Amino acid sequence: MASLIDPTGTAFLLAESRTMPMHVGGLHLFERPEGAGRDYGRQMYESMRDVDEVAPLFLKRPHRSLTTAGQLVWVEDDQFDIEHHVQHGALPQPGRVRELLELAGRLHSTRMAWERPLWEATVIEGLRDGRIALYTKTHHALVDGISAMRLLQSVLSTDGERTAMPAPWDARTRRTSSSTSGSAAPPQATDLTDLPLRTLRSALAIAGEAAGLPAALARTVTRGVRNETSAISLHAPRTIFNQKITGSRRFAAQDWPVARLRGIGKATGTTINDVVLAMCAGAVRAYLLELDALPDAPLVAMVPVGLNARQANAASTDGGNAVGSVMCRLGTDLPDPADRLRTIHASMTDGKQALSTMTPAQILAMSALGQAPAIIAPLLRLEGMMRPPYNLIISNVPGPRTTHYWNGARLVGTYPLSIPINGMALNITCTSYDGRLAFGLIGCRRTVPHLQRMLGHLDTELTALERAAGVT
Amino acid sequence: MASLIDPTGTAFLLAESRTMPMHVGGLHLFERPEGAGRDYGRQMYESMRDVDEVAPLFLKRPHRSLTTAGQLVWVEDDQFDIEHHVQHGALPQPGRVRELLELAGRLHSTRMAWERPLWEATVIEGLRDGRIALYTKTHHALVDGISAMRLLQSVLSTDGERTAMPAPWDARTRRTSSSTSGSAAPPQATDLTDLPLRTLRSALAIAGEAAGLPAALARTVTRGVRNETSAISLHAPRTIFNQKITGSRRFAAQDWPVARLRGIGKATGTTINDVVLAMCAGAVRAYLLELDALPDAPLVAMVPVGLNARQANAASTDGGNAVGSVMCRLGTDLPDPADRLRTIHASMTDGKQALSTMTPAQILAMSALGQAPAIIAPLLRLEGMMRPPYNLIISNVPGPRTTHYWNGARLVGTYPLSIPINGMALNITCTSYDGRLAFGLIGCRRTVPHLQRMLGHLDTELTALERAAGVT
Repeated sequence: MASLIDPTGTAFLLAESRTMPMHVGGLHLFERPEGAGRDYGRQMYESMRDVDEVAPLFLKRPHRSLTTAGQLVWVEDDQFDIEHHVQHGALPQPGRVRELLELAGRLHSTRMAWERPLWEATVIEGLRDGRIALYTKTHHALVDGISAMRLLQSVLSTDGERTAMPAPWDARTRRTSSSTSGSAAPPQATDLTDLPLRTLRSALAIAGEAAGLPAALARTVTRGVRNETSAISLHAPRTIFNQKITGSRRFAAQDWPVARLRGIGKATGTTINDVVLAMCAGAVRAYLLELDALPDAPLVAMVPVGLNARQANAASTDGGNAVGSVMCRLGTDLPDPADRLRTIHASMTDGKQALSTMTPAQILAMSALGQAPAIIAPLLRLEGMMRPPYNLIISNVPGPRTTHYWNGARLVGTYPLSIPINGMALNITCTSYDGRLAFGLIGCRRTVPHLQRMLGHLDTELTALERAAGVT
Repeated sequence: MASLIDPTGTAFLLAESRTMPMHVGGLHLFERPEGAGRDYGRQMYESMRDVDEVAPLFLKRPHRSLTTAGQLVWVEDDQFDIEHHVQHGALPQPGRVRELLELAGRLHSTRMAWERPLWEATVIEGLRDGRIALYTKTHHALVDGISAMRLLQSVLSTDGERTAMPAPWDARTRRTSSSTSGSAAPPQATDLTDLPLRTLRSALAIAGEAAGLPAALARTVTRGVRNETSAISLHAPRTIFNQKITGSRRFAAQDWPVARLRGIGKATGTTINDVVLAMCAGAVRAYLLELDALPDAPLVAMVPVGLNARQANAASTDGGNAVGSVMCRLGTDLPDPADRLRTIHASMTDGKQALSTMTPAQILAMSALGQAPAIIAPLLRLEGMMRPPYNLIISNVPGPRTTHYWNGARLVGTYPLSIPINGMALNITCTSYDGRLAFGLIGCRRTVPHLQRMLGHLDTELTALERAAGVT
């Protein structure tokens, strides 16, 4: 009945505290299908709730007892109650995106109890434009952030006419994908729920080893982090982001056409990812300036990168992605957007070059930092350091390029919610979908005030970069 | 800056765990004022949120540090953020009372973090009949359940035309009540926020001493609880209510005209409280029968009672109420409603008689059990006992008899949410208001399934009692 929890899963469970819940989230926006009525939100909720057989992954809860010698194991929740996990919510008037982000931030703030399987999903109605949102929450011990995003995608279809599609936690998911393999089902419809847990958390496979890091290697990591002479600089100024956090969250999200970022990249000889980082850099600069909290020295972002281009799209399969991390200088000391983009491009090029010359142990050390900061944080005592190794984490994970549907409801946007930790109060995770690049910003509600302002700054920066690149 | 937390408050903080949050709640239903628009929910939310100066009681958070020698103290939250505490929520379609109770149960399930003042309030819109609900949540370390209910009442007015009325946490509350004392303000408008904390928790004043109970007295309590020969029997059969609980809650609430209960009381020579208990007894019997879980032996309810009638209405002043407890046999083994009511009446009469002959130390022991089960539970290991001392707690606290308003919005119902604990998975708290008797049932979502059914059973039982009393 009981099965072992792998070291990474265990580490995420043990690292969890009231102020640092270790779950990742996704906010997904759907358009109602043609002719759907006023009660469509309830219909969607009911079809997500009324599942005949729930997949095993969604029935497991962590358990520790005398009989397991104190070790954490997965056991099946024999009193599973899907109404606890699949919820139905609504937005107050006027039902703007603002109210939606507020609710998503609140839902993301509460820690999940170990007495039940570690996932929740909330169908949210009440958006004034009639769209329906789905907020999903999955513990990092169960799946990593990327796989959590893919969980929903795995049950979507490119066929807007398809019906009788299962919820991500439906045991039918496996059978459905098998029966449609080679047919109209998109490549993303790989059945994740059927994969072994260690594969599901593939992006963390290496970090998983890091969790069991022997003391000698841990010392190496620590030295690496604190070594100014390293090829990858890990020094960053102290900012408001690098403080102890509370358990309360605020969420901000918005998307922009990928074509606009691509245009800037083409005109300046930089990558889309460089432009993403430049947008973040400009936004963070403007945000900190407004708060009169911009340090003189440039901020450093930790940016997870794939080790080679071929792997970059293989997030949820065995190949893994984002197994290395680059410390990127964001040029927040430079007033000119073009200068910041150039600095970022150079920093990323250097970093990836350095990564390619690193030994596996060094890459492991980097990965451990990048992929599992929550696990490594106690090791490094990030919040206690005079100068943090980096100021914030910015991830960018490619997603599906085509339009997807769930039972005729078109997915129009999908935004990730990651994990702030002590010393890293702000996390920016980006993902692309259907020609748009979505930014999901999650911060400690107290440490990172007025997070919504960052969205305006991102927009301003995108326009400024276009102007600087001469593509407007 | 720091102030000591009294022993009861400390005990409630220390007794708290993820599965047993120690807060009490209130669900209050308001009718929109004449001519109020579609955005009235937002208006009410904003006037609850936009408070110039928050009263000191609502700015305190518990704190423990080296400088306080490990002792818990109250400190002012110097980063107080009212948007964290005053929230704006909404119900999904179709916006029935069912959706409201579901949301209230969810809101009541989450534990409050000690890093902030221990209270929350949520203005809830989306009821299809246009009413607006307010859910309030206050930690038991701050105020007891009765005072928590009174907190809202303390700012209400009997004058439906009055405007510019403050929220309960507004520092103006004190000034307003002072300026109106002797005027149209109702007696309930006593300013609670200005009272010292120990007075606010007056109903727990004696239990407070019990928390610091010396070992010898603790032994007395234990003996009393386990002593079959005691005047107050404390033996009860084992039921599904007497199990370990989870942190997830379900809430059910409804009210009935006091006149109907009074009619039964008059015709049968029993009190309104006896009829309340008989309704609960019949409902619990029907509920357990449906689940095939009714024990042969009758269930026992712990019923807090005032030591004399004069004190019964003085819940929130220094006099205190409910300082004793009666163990009431509910007659759940009897199929006839009239027999159950007779049994309950006799049991309550005996119990009150026994209480009046008890020594102060005995009453203290009873009170400790009744008022602070959460504190005493670890002492008694309720959930570990073969036979629990009682099966559930049923409280009935009188409230205002006249119609009250908040800025022109008429309060049409007010329902208490209390605290289930390990071994006591169901709590029923009743209160009267404006001619109606409101029942608030709160249970562990897992241990007490289908709690909503109890409302139907309560209604059925009231009708059956009327028929039995010949008053229909």
